[in-house]
Amino acid sequence: MSNLPYSFQTAARIVAGNGSLDRLADLVQGCGEVKRALVIAQNSAVRLGFAERIEAQLRQAGIASERLTGMMNEPTADHIGELHARIKETPFDVYIAIGGGSVLDAAKILSVLRTNKERVEEMVGTDRVRKPGVPTVLIPTTSGTGSEVTPNAIVTFPEEELKIGAVSRHLLPAVALLDPELTLELPGPVTAATGMDAFTHALESFISNKANPISDMFALEAMRKISGSIETAYREGRSLKAREDMLIGSMYGGMALTGSGTAAVHALAYPLGGKFHIPHGVANSMLLPHVMAFNYDAIEERLAEAATVMGLREGRGASRTAAAEAVIEKIAEWTKTLDIPQQLAAFGVREEHVPELAVAASKVTRLLDNNPKPLDIPQIEALYRKLLA
Amino acid sequence: MSNLPYSFQTAARIVAGNGSLDRLADLVQGCGEVKRALVIAQNSAVRLGFAERIEAQLRQAGIASERLTGMMNEPTADHIGELHARIKETPFDVYIAIGGGSVLDAAKILSVLRTNKERVEEMVGTDRVRKPGVPTVLIPTTSGTGSEVTPNAIVTFPEEELKIGAVSRHLLPAVALLDPELTLELPGPVTAATGMDAFTHALESFISNKANPISDMFALEAMRKISGSIETAYREGRSLKAREDMLIGSMYGGMALTGSGTAAVHALAYPLGGKFHIPHGVANSMLLPHVMAFNYDAIEERLAEAATVMGLREGRGASRTAAAEAVIEKIAEWTKTLDIPQQLAAFGVREEHVPELAVAASKVTRLLDNNPKPLDIPQIEALYRKLLA
Ligand SMILES: NC(=O)c1ccc[n+]([C@@H]2O[C@H](COP(=O)([O-])OP(=O)(O)OC[C@H]3O[C@@H](n4cnc5c(N)ncnc54)[C@H](O)[C@@H]3O)[C@@H](O)[C@H]2O)c1
Ligand SMILES: NC(=O)c1ccc[n+]([C@@H]2O[C@H](COP(=O)([O-])OP(=O)(O)OC[C@H]3O[C@@H](n4cnc5c(N)ncnc54)[C@H](O)[C@@H]3O)[C@@H](O)[C@H]2O)c1
Ligand SMILES: [Fe+2]
Ligand SMILES: [Fe+2]
Repeated sequence: MSNLPYSFQTAARIVAGNGSLDRLADLVQGCGEVKRALVIAQNSAVRLGFAERIEAQLRQAGIASERLTGMMNEPTADHIGELHARIKETPFDVYIAIGGGSVLDAAKILSVLRTNKERVEEMVGTDRVRKPGVPTVLIPTTSGTGSEVTPNAIVTFPEEELKIGAVSRHLLPAVALLDPELTLELPGPVTAATGMDAFTHALESFISNKANPISDMFALEAMRKISGSIETAYREGRSLKAREDMLIGSMYGGMALTGSGTAAVHALAYPLGGKFHIPHGVANSMLLPHVMAFNYDAIEERLAEAATVMGLREGRGASRTAAAEAVIEKIAEWTKTLDIPQQLAAFGVREEHVPELAVAASKVTRLLDNNPKPLDIPQIEALYRKLLA
Repeated sequence: MSNLPYSFQTAARIVAGNGSLDRLADLVQGCGEVKRALVIAQNSAVRLGFAERIEAQLRQAGIASERLTGMMNEPTADHIGELHARIKETPFDVYIAIGGGSVLDAAKILSVLRTNKERVEEMVGTDRVRKPGVPTVLIPTTSGTGSEVTPNAIVTFPEEELKIGAVSRHLLPAVALLDPELTLELPGPVTAATGMDAFTHALESFISNKANPISDMFALEAMRKISGSIETAYREGRSLKAREDMLIGSMYGGMALTGSGTAAVHALAYPLGGKFHIPHGVANSMLLPHVMAFNYDAIEERLAEAATVMGLREGRGASRTAAAEAVIEKIAEWTKTLDIPQQLAAFGVREEHVPELAVAASKVTRLLDNNPKPLDIPQIEALYRKLLA
């Protein structure tokens, strides 16, 4: 916990709840004088008819639109650059993005590529975007990244086999629109992995060296909502209540990490995504119990607080240790009930890859600096090896 | 509780914590190219040396500044218009306001008076401000209104003997800066009244017809922080921990009311301020227990939830009624421990004024519509009479 001044920022406007997608045209018009919109849609959002619903609404409001599709998951810098080349000649007053974090992050970068002369590579890192971009409206269809409310966008660099975050207030959207109905068709494995990503944001923010009263509130509320709904959302995908709790919970997770940052779980997950294309949520879920066990002696008190909001204290008496351990047990239990992969080998990772993974992770100092315990390269290697055993 | 889409917006950037005032120049520079700033300082902020600290920092950063002082408490439309006339010929790139809600609200209106042609009277009501104003940096020195994070500004209209809110996203600041050290000298009676205002924001937002998952989180967290610190802040004004909890709690109160609105307590308080100049926090504190008792049968379950975060459930068993009643008792207890006035007569209000007060309150439909139980004029009169008995 830091004693320094702390800070918070979020989307200029957040609209949430069932049916909120039907408010889109109004919200777009609130972004200024909008004549032409670009709809950036993930393939699943096209398939499920969401892109068409958006375009029909815009048409009715007299707003012209074009559609950009064919985005890759967990986009590379080159891919985002190519997308930009395809759209840059047409004037657009707003970018509307619908999909998981992959598409929201791409849209955030595309928005500032339009107004800045720097290339994607020059924008990653902290505060490296100079000018505001085209206003964005971000509509998540996973309950995972919280990207719709964060100033972050994560870009894959395949040459360096790494993922790097761009962090800038110019990446914050004009509108975040959270309609739980859009997540009803999210397949079970994606529900599990993205949901665990959201939980990881909350827990890592809560134990971060930069944790503060504002990030704590969001982190605790995220853990409360997610732990109360993730199993139902996985088993009964059409439960609107569970889907709403997951969506709001993941938004709070994004708000938590905005203030205090994630830590070692995310640092170690990035090389797994960058080199082995392990989906971000899966990589986080695999690492989470092991990294928390590693951190345990520095975070027991915080875990015990987490246990309270996760409803794990009843019947356990007052022992702090018992409560803290219950959190770790619950995370381990989720890997089973949510069928989360536990073996790096299934993704082609072998013992010989461990040293280079560890070197790559050790470079993610932006996040490792937030971890309550420092990690050296042998300790990072040992954590990866737990997933090879 | 509403089932419709709900929305949230706040200050573009929030910086909080001890010593955060020392970050001011950096934050001002983040507002764009700033050459000249206007420092709008409440008299107490001048007396305590805060205005000078701000100006010294600006000077060091090469930013010219002028100071505007002599603001009245709970400002009238005419007063704000006169202040605007004094400053409008000089170009300013940012308005920095330091003080209680009176000064923050005035600064918010001054900011949009500079860029819009409408007069103050034409800006009150919902969404009546057309264009964004000069960027504002709002620095609260009371833990009360939460104005530093809300899109609201309250204006007094003495002819109509009423206070009316202007609500517009263009009133949101570029930066809210919350430094608890600035509240250490807040006198006991002001601590009590403004703190009860903040608590009222939270509780009214929580029982509002427009309450929603986002406003609920802020409301509960505000009640937790405020109920845990208000008595200490009152008795031991120099307790930095209690002051920080009050300041963050009042910010959460503002965030709660942004999403869901306040209700009958505020509606009935406005005529007491408009006609009898009863300070806003005092008027709210007097009315709070009576209005909550009036609402009781519609809000028992919500009160019981509030009891949990207020730490009032221990030893009371599981009864919902007992928990809910404990909240009302606690509020009544605060009127004693915090020495809150209980008699309208002390402010010159007599029985003969009740009918006109009730008519005025009945016109505050923006807030009365949020109340879980409708109130007719005889019921409003009866509530005022409880404070004359
Ligand atoms: N910006 C941030 O703050 C932040 C935080 C964490 C992670 N991220 C990044 O976000 C990316 C991951 O995003 P993600 O986890 O949301 O996954 P994703 O966007 O990659 O989507 C995963 C899969 O789910 C499908 N899908 C999405 N919504 C669906 C729906 N409603 N119904 C059916 N299928 C659907 C997609 O088509 C895709 O195949 C990674 O690059 C990660 O690094 C960003
Ligand atoms: N915008 C909103 O969302 C919102 C919400 C609630 C109330 N309000 C409005 O805000 C106004 C009330 O503001 P308030 O309750 O903060 O009081 P205030 O600004 O009127 O200040 C009350 C008194 O306290 C003094 N003071 C302030 N800070 C001090 C400090 N640190 N040390 C010593 N003295 C100090 C002031 O000089 C003043 O005399 C009312 O007009 C009310 O209607 C606005
Ligand atoms: Fe993540
Ligand atoms: Fe108030």
